[in-house]
Amino acid sequence: MAARPANAAPIGVFDSGVGGLTVLRALRTALPQEDFLYLGDTARLPYGTKGAGTVVRYALQASQLLVDRGIKCLVVACNTASAVALPAMRTAFAGLPVIGVIEPGAAAACAATRNGHIAVIATDGTVRGGAYPAAIHALRPDARVSAAACQVFVALAEEGWTDGAVAKSAAQRYLGELFGAAADDSPDTLVLGCTHFPMLIGPIRAVVGGKVAIVDSAATVAQATDRLLQDHDLRGNGNGRLTLLATDAPERFARVGSAFLGDAIGAGQIELVDLNPAGRRAGAGTPPR
Amino acid sequence: MAARPANAAPIGVFDSGVGGLTVLRALRTALPQEDFLYLGDTARLPYGTKGAGTVVRYALQASQLLVDRGIKCLVVACNTASAVALPAMRTAFAGLPVIGVIEPGAAAACAATRNGHIAVIATDGTVRGGAYPAAIHALRPDARVSAAACQVFVALAEEGWTDGAVAKSAAQRYLGELFGAAADDSPDTLVLGCTHFPMLIGPIRAVVGGKVAIVDSAATVAQATDRLLQDHDLRGNGNGRLTLLATDAPERFARVGSAFLGDAIGAGQIELVDLNPAGRRAGAGTPPR
Repeated sequence: MAARPANAAPIGVFDSGVGGLTVLRALRTALPQEDFLYLGDTARLPYGTKGAGTVVRYALQASQLLVDRGIKCLVVACNTASAVALPAMRTAFAGLPVIGVIEPGAAAACAATRNGHIAVIATDGTVRGGAYPAAIHALRPDARVSAAACQVFVALAEEGWTDGAVAKSAAQRYLGELFGAAADDSPDTLVLGCTHFPMLIGPIRAVVGGKVAIVDSAATVAQATDRLLQDHDLRGNGNGRLTLLATDAPERFARVGSAFLGDAIGAGQIELVDLNPAGRRAGAGTPPR
Repeated sequence: MAARPANAAPIGVFDSGVGGLTVLRALRTALPQEDFLYLGDTARLPYGTKGAGTVVRYALQASQLLVDRGIKCLVVACNTASAVALPAMRTAFAGLPVIGVIEPGAAAACAATRNGHIAVIATDGTVRGGAYPAAIHALRPDARVSAAACQVFVALAEEGWTDGAVAKSAAQRYLGELFGAAADDSPDTLVLGCTHFPMLIGPIRAVVGGKVAIVDSAATVAQATDRLLQDHDLRGNGNGRLTLLATDAPERFARVGSAFLGDAIGAGQIELVDLNPAGRRAGAGTPPR
């Protein structure tokens, strides 16, 4: 039997949980002829508050499972993993194209800014890691970058509180001062450096005003993936088949994730997988619980 | 050399992260003559969104480390672990007194209520597990229990947003309807069923009003621990020595935890430990990273 051609293989998408479903949504819109294999490491989320060594270890374990199932490229939808684990992943999976969310977002921000002042909002872990300022300065050394950790936005997105008084006052508290400065001094571009944040675009836009360019990394990653598939002659001819994997709590994944994906997910659609090395050796992919 | 007398051993306190530091704070206030060994499983927090099987496994691993270091009793400060893992822990550590936060909170609520209507607020996982209603009904079968998941409160407490517009509107959104009913029908007692929630007592009190009894499980657990030590003749004569262990990110633990403990914590005070079974066998307690 002939091996399946590489371009018929699915695109792997990895995230620490449901946030990456906003990236998957953008990928499905941009690439309707591709099949997708998504893994949310829900047993170990959030990555954003964990140390770099732990994140690298978790990201390698999780991606290995996708690689073992045969993917043609890997999209790391998790900002935290993109920020700290991408070099280790590219080394571990030599030959497999790996795309993170940081570089496409940084490139889009550099293309969008006119006054050179770019704001980045993200989780604590991403901000502390400094990956966005580094990626922006690599492209545009004179850029001024204002980074702010907006951890509460994650909880608001997962609770479905994407509008209303709580989201509005949180956006005001995080962003009001930065975007309330004199027009010449405040950022003209805002990077949503966490996959949860596009869910809060309404209250964020209300605070920053209509003239600020908002860079949604989901959309920029979808464009980058499209280019990568063309460059590697890997474009597919599938029908958009979607396989969802999670490491824990499929009911919650389905409930919270439906809003992120913009499409109904049933708990029965989610395959529970085990990333524990011992469990994987013994159980060959069957749920451990 | 004589073995150290049992009552000179520390009290073990286990939580998924920093939340249990509110319980530790109450324990230190009530029992100043006791030494404490606290473990926050920060590498795997939060437990509140994880499945029951995972929580049991994590709780047993974490507690085993405290037991191995010689504790005289174990306080499970994590509501999620108390709700689902207490029977497994009592079986695994036969002979060691183990106290959870659910039963003392339920008992205090039953003692406080006059109209028999008790509200419980907690994380998603605790509410879905139904442990508080079960514990309350075991003591008072005719009680009416209204349980509400208040997941955003966790993020607000960790962000230090314990007052101000965001916390106030979140409290209003979660609790306004339940406590805005006709006086006869609304709960007269509110159980804070998550260790993070005492940090938000201000905005919570503002919404529920002055006549509602608020049961803070931290205080009730401290009383229950005091009684248990007396019953087992285990009261100590120490000087309140505190040892803090965490499984990841000691800087964040120190930064967020100081407010929860009500006492400054330096990152250097926190010992990083590994709960990975292979790592523990190989590394004998040294940090793995």
